[in-house]
Amino acid sequence: METQKIAIYDTTLRDGTQREGLSLSVEDKMRIADCLDRMGVAFIEGGWAGANPKDGEFFRRMQDHPLRNAELVVFCSTRRAGIKAEDDPMLVPIVGAATKWITIFGKSWDLHVIEGLRTTLEENLAMISDTIAYLKNCDRRLIYDAEHWFDGYKNNPEYALKTLKSAFDAGAEWFILCDTNGGTLPDEISQITELVDASLREWGSTSPQIGIHTHNDAGLAVANAIASVQHGATMVQGTINGYGERCGNANLCTLIPNLQLKMGYDCIAADRLLNLTATSRQVSEIVNLAPDDHAPFVGASAFAHKGGIHVSAVQRNPLTYEHITPESIGNNRRIVISEQAGISNVISKVETFGICLRKEDPACRQILQITKDLEQIGYQFESAEASFELLVREALGDRPKFFTISSFHVYSTSDVTHSVGAVNSQATVKVLVKDEEHLTAAEGNGPVAALDAALRKALTSFYPEIANFYLTDYKVRILNSDSGTKATTRVLIEFSNGKRRWSTAGVSQNIIDASCKALAEGFEYGLLSAVRHMMEIAKA
Amino acid sequence: METQKIAIYDTTLRDGTQREGLSLSVEDKMRIADCLDRMGVAFIEGGWAGANPKDGEFFRRMQDHPLRNAELVVFCSTRRAGIKAEDDPMLVPIVGAATKWITIFGKSWDLHVIEGLRTTLEENLAMISDTIAYLKNCDRRLIYDAEHWFDGYKNNPEYALKTLKSAFDAGAEWFILCDTNGGTLPDEISQITELVDASLREWGSTSPQIGIHTHNDAGLAVANAIASVQHGATMVQGTINGYGERCGNANLCTLIPNLQLKMGYDCIAADRLLNLTATSRQVSEIVNLAPDDHAPFVGASAFAHKGGIHVSAVQRNPLTYEHITPESIGNNRRIVISEQAGISNVISKVETFGICLRKEDPACRQILQITKDLEQIGYQFESAEASFELLVREALGDRPKFFTISSFHVYSTSDVTHSVGAVNSQATVKVLVKDEEHLTAAEGNGPVAALDAALRKALTSFYPEIANFYLTDYKVRILNSDSGTKATTRVLIEFSNGKRRWSTAGVSQNIIDASCKALAEGFEYGLLSAVRHMMEIAKA
Repeated sequence: METQKIAIYDTTLRDGTQREGLSLSVEDKMRIADCLDRMGVAFIEGGWAGANPKDGEFFRRMQDHPLRNAELVVFCSTRRAGIKAEDDPMLVPIVGAATKWITIFGKSWDLHVIEGLRTTLEENLAMISDTIAYLKNCDRRLIYDAEHWFDGYKNNPEYALKTLKSAFDAGAEWFILCDTNGGTLPDEISQITELVDASLREWGSTSPQIGIHTHNDAGLAVANAIASVQHGATMVQGTINGYGERCGNANLCTLIPNLQLKMGYDCIAADRLLNLTATSRQVSEIVNLAPDDHAPFVGASAFAHKGGIHVSAVQRNPLTYEHITPESIGNNRRIVISEQAGISNVISKVETFGICLRKEDPACRQILQITKDLEQIGYQFESAEASFELLVREALGDRPKFFTISSFHVYSTSDVTHSVGAVNSQATVKVLVKDEEHLTAAEGNGPVAALDAALRKALTSFYPEIANFYLTDYKVRILNSDSGTKATTRVLIEFSNGKRRWSTAGVSQNIIDASCKALAEGFEYGLLSAVRHMMEIAKA
Repeated sequence: METQKIAIYDTTLRDGTQREGLSLSVEDKMRIADCLDRMGVAFIEGGWAGANPKDGEFFRRMQDHPLRNAELVVFCSTRRAGIKAEDDPMLVPIVGAATKWITIFGKSWDLHVIEGLRTTLEENLAMISDTIAYLKNCDRRLIYDAEHWFDGYKNNPEYALKTLKSAFDAGAEWFILCDTNGGTLPDEISQITELVDASLREWGSTSPQIGIHTHNDAGLAVANAIASVQHGATMVQGTINGYGERCGNANLCTLIPNLQLKMGYDCIAADRLLNLTATSRQVSEIVNLAPDDHAPFVGASAFAHKGGIHVSAVQRNPLTYEHITPESIGNNRRIVISEQAGISNVISKVETFGICLRKEDPACRQILQITKDLEQIGYQFESAEASFELLVREALGDRPKFFTISSFHVYSTSDVTHSVGAVNSQATVKVLVKDEEHLTAAEGNGPVAALDAALRKALTSFYPEIANFYLTDYKVRILNSDSGTKATTRVLIEFSNGKRRWSTAGVSQNIIDASCKALAEGFEYGLLSAVRHMMEIAKA
């Protein structure tokens, strides 16, 4: 039997941003779209063009930034009551978003038509069919989100089916059953999906394209999506890490491995599944929310073994206490007491830097110990691989000393004028290069900008490549939050030279000190890469 | 038809403590037992007496601390291989725990018998029946936990049923089907529960007492427990907030309202259900883990509404966007402010500050516009409600000027000694109070700590309440990331006075300036709350 294909439809950029505390810049959205595209989802819902300036700009910029695999989708409601679709200004930016696919959501629940839209049941049907027909006429392919489908169907099945029929007749290709309020139970989902499948066949569809969109208000978003797939759905909608309004959407990081590894459906290419854990963590870094260590499959504790009996059993046979192999989704087994588990981790990571280490090599254990010690005080190397590579090279005696920072002083004052771009900080930095000290000073809009400028001033005459390195992201998090401003601070900085990006971490009680460490390692890694690049050219 | 009773078996004190990072003192355990007893669960599993000194002491102390409703249960494995139950020293403290009920767990999976216990399949059956028969003879009532039931049954159904039959014949009253590795899917749970029910009836049980114990490794712990209940289980095991090893156990705070409010089962008294949210938060306080705001039913965001369309609809009819009434489990509806907000968000939000605004009021539109403008430059009010309230009061001409910061200067240097707690920053701040300027200086481990100290020094003599405000969290992110250190910085600070928490936001190109704004608003809001609190006392 051929493997059944399930289309993965990600809505992190639209429904995910409904989560309280989550707000994305246009750059954030573009970076997440790239992560999703790399992971191999079929559809990426980018937002509601026109609903806010950010989403409009996102779609404009995506026109010059084509995705490799995924289809970008723009989202919008049906036209307003009482006007023609072509006269509704809301649809102008939707067409302007220039995506091949558009998702239109409409009302399935009579209560919402009357109390929410305050229009008639008949007009709602016209709103669905007009909007879809108009956009189809603009040469778009249509996905129809049946909002509140399950509540609507339970309340008035006849009317709910009429709304779906309107979308069907108007030419929508996918029919998404939404459990908008997240309160439906799996057995209801199963039954109703089956009924929709039967109705679509009755209307003449030979292979009904049903999608399922669930929310986690009853803690059942993933179970409900699975139930629907088992009864006919061939598309699942969800978000990375389950971000979404209230209790969130179906978590794709849970749903995809369940469907693919346990149930045998084909969601994303098997080699992409290996990126699942990395994608989950990258997205949580971009949205700046701490990852949930206890998340199924991708959490740092998902394969952590604590008790002694478990540990020895799992080492003899992983099947005894693990429901899947953690490597299949790019996660790791963690043995909380024994350090045995980490060695292979170190070896495989170091391999990506082009360094071959054998298990017996004493450097392995040394790197592992340094990593654990640094992680203990707050480093996190997952988002700072450049810092990790420098650490490895240090342990192997293979870290060139391009420069050393002897000391810095930073001075910052209030921006009395409150004018944008006013210079309000100064930094001096003493750098050791070739056994000679160089003292430079610079100013900037903020202490880190001033420090960055002073460092560049000191280093550029020795290493002109530094002029090409620029900072693309800067993030700070408090690690032991209960001690407030006295707590340890972790700074993550991302650099780019226009061709590739790299990230470093700095940890200190002083945010400036942490920033300085991350900055210095960023320059150092950039120089190391430049050397490597030149050597490769020389060899070739 | 009579309502079907479901016994709630809580294992927060035993399986819950397997969670990485969770560790309880004896006092903690006793306080949690009291919370659970008040909430009305049927069974409280207290621990494995003898496995560690803490659990032994807990059971000793509980003998002088009787529970009002719940049965306290002690947990233990079957006897060791090759000895008589009465000779196994492990069982001495179990009998000594002096509980009416004992839970014994045994192996169901042949793989575990051979690879884990390293004994014969026959001896394992004898270990189950001997242990149960011996403890029954000590006048105890027995619950049998069939560890790895589902994996065992799928691997060797005949042998798995033999283990259960051994427990049945020896006199156990409850048979708990454990999905120990958490990887089973709901439809498998349903089928296998039904088969167990049939087997128990075949063996002569007229009303089989089946329990279900699930883990969340596939994100399905709650769904699996529900599936089992729908196919014959009448006991559910789980933990408060889903604490447990790896990805946790079935979350009782999700499971109970699903079973009781949605499916009509009788789990706990209806008036106790009103305590569910409070219990969840009390337990998270005792275990000292931040509550999950996005948890189903009991999370702070579980009934939070963000989008403008949602807000106006939910105010007309809560059913439109809420699957249950939040009050039924002691939670509240919350209206969140963000760029997606409309006028109705503003009105209902402002109501929570005790301010009544009408839709027609020009202040409404003004507040919304200011919110959107500030969000455009990077403020985020949904995580900074205190800043939002100050903004509203400003717009309404109702913001007391406790103080104004005229200027600040911050100086930071590298921590040459690299010793923890070394002071490396100084701040001076000029504050205007009662039209007089006050200049103070202070030092700290980092620029923000120094600034915080200087501000306190300036203000405490006027407002001694400030001594009670402390910082509980501090977060920074860059908003327009492509411009690196020259970008806009947004700082979020959370404060507490030991009774409640509040959050403020500051945005600037200079991280110190942004921190200063957020700090100042934090102090200001704390003072405003103190005034309000005193006025309320005066009025009462």
